Amino acid sequence: MHDTPAPTGRFISFEGIDGSGKSTQARLLAEDFAAQGIDAILTREPGGSDGAEEIRRLLVEGEPNRWSAETELLLFTAARRDHLERRILPALTAGRMVICDRFADSTRVYQGATRGDLRAKVDLLHDTMIGREPDLTLIIDMDPKRALSRGLARASGEDRFEDFGAEFQETLRNGFVELARSDPARCAVISGEGTPAEVAQAVRRSVAERLAL
Amino acid sequence: MHDTPAPTGRFISFEGIDGSGKSTQARLLAEDFAAQGIDAILTREPGGSDGAEEIRRLLVEGEPNRWSAETELLLFTAARRDHLERRILPALTAGRMVICDRFADSTRVYQGATRGDLRAKVDLLHDTMIGREPDLTLIIDMDPKRALSRGLARASGEDRFEDFGAEFQETLRNGFVELARSDPARCAVISGEGTPAEVAQAVRRSVAERLAL
Ligand SMILES: Nc1ncnc2c1ncn2[C@@H]1O[C@H](COP(=O)(O)OP(=O)(O)OP(=O)(O)O)[C@@H](O)[C@H]1O
Ligand SMILES: Nc1ncnc2c1ncn2[C@@H]1O[C@H](COP(=O)(O)OP(=O)(O)OP(=O)(O)O)[C@@H](O)[C@H]1O
Ligand SMILES: [Mg+2]
Ligand SMILES: [Mg+2]
Repeated sequence: MHDTPAPTGRFISFEGIDGSGKSTQARLLAEDFAAQGIDAILTREPGGSDGAEEIRRLLVEGEPNRWSAETELLLFTAARRDHLERRILPALTAGRMVICDRFADSTRVYQGATRGDLRAKVDLLHDTMIGREPDLTLIIDMDPKRALSRGLARASGEDRFEDFGAEFQETLRNGFVELARSDPARCAVISGEGTPAEVAQAVRRSVAERLAL
Repeated sequence: MHDTPAPTGRFISFEGIDGSGKSTQARLLAEDFAAQGIDAILTREPGGSDGAEEIRRLLVEGEPNRWSAETELLLFTAARRDHLERRILPALTAGRMVICDRFADSTRVYQGATRGDLRAKVDLLHDTMIGREPDLTLIIDMDPKRALSRGLARASGEDRFEDFGAEFQETLRNGFVELARSDPARCAVISGEGTPAEVAQAVRRSVAERLAL
């Protein structure tokens, strides 16, 4: 008998514009894995670990101009590092799948849209302090106006449409699509226009193909 | 008549091992400037601005292993960025002197002594996200055992000698001296062995020479 290395889990992230259905699809994929008896955790950014949630609180509370874009980027990176090392990597090492609702691509695309001049710093901080990319990133792509109308239907006070508007969402959409184009081995673009079950079907197909599950 | 650029303040930091007299000398220099009618602010790290103080709270509260060295480094850098842009740079721009009790060199030397493998990341984060060095860094140098005995005489519960000991302080001392050697244009080594007034005299002489004040 000899040791075979323990199987390691796979790291899957969901990305896309606000209201495109990331959280819905992340949850449906987790349910699908559970139904198949595949061990998985569902997590999200910003936050996802105790420390990261505390840093997130600094980021979301208080006045809008409380932090400069640079300080905010450092705090996001600190939260991501904590999330990665305290929650994501231990789960992967234990052989579990990790489904993450937003990850580093959200920072890349949002910073690209708001402070494009910081993009080089975003990449440098990521490469130096995070280093890890998901094994598969599912980018839910859809018309921002339709996503917006979904958002308006939501009761939650958390949506950011009033702050940003459809034009900004269009810039984000292009950013995500551009990102997928630049890293096709990792990213798959999924149309978010169908029903939740239809989109989930496309997600399942992509996961099966890309990760051989 | 033509415009002359407004005079900008100078940025002076105090560094050195625990208990060497940084805070004492920073305060004495601020008093000396006040007596000379030189406009100056006295600040300190970690902390020094509202945002940085909140980040500092995350760093000092809770369990010792709450953050990894990498996350801690990101949080320190976020706090320093906030301190720099919200407090230090505005004061310098307004023509005021800035006296800072510890700055980036403390991170360099402490990380060098505890996690030497992170030193390249420390430098890269500093160069990318902070960029600014003091105009003059006064390194108070002294025998760690004598600094230790001062510390033991202190009532404050804030001292860290019990955690670290004299051997670690010796490593830090060498780190500060090494740093001064590597950047002699910015750093001056001052003996901290005399009375507070004697050390302050040496500080005053160094400031006068180096900054032509
Ligand atoms: N395929 C779909 N068709 C119609 N409505 C949907 C669909 N998917 C999600 N929704 C609804 O749209 C809203 C936004 O969905 P969800 O919260 O999953 O999006 P999100 O991308 O996570 O948004 P956010 O960026 O704000 O986190 C919710 O009310 C959700 O129930
Ligand atoms: N030249 C000196 N001679 C004797 N005692 C001194 C001298 N300078 C400072 N002290 C005393 O030594 C103790 C440590 O001084 P101080 O707090 O200024 O050091 P520090 O370098 O800021 O320490 P820390 O690294 O803990 O912040 C204090 O009790 C202070 O009053
Ligand atoms: Mg969501
Ligand atoms: Mg002090």
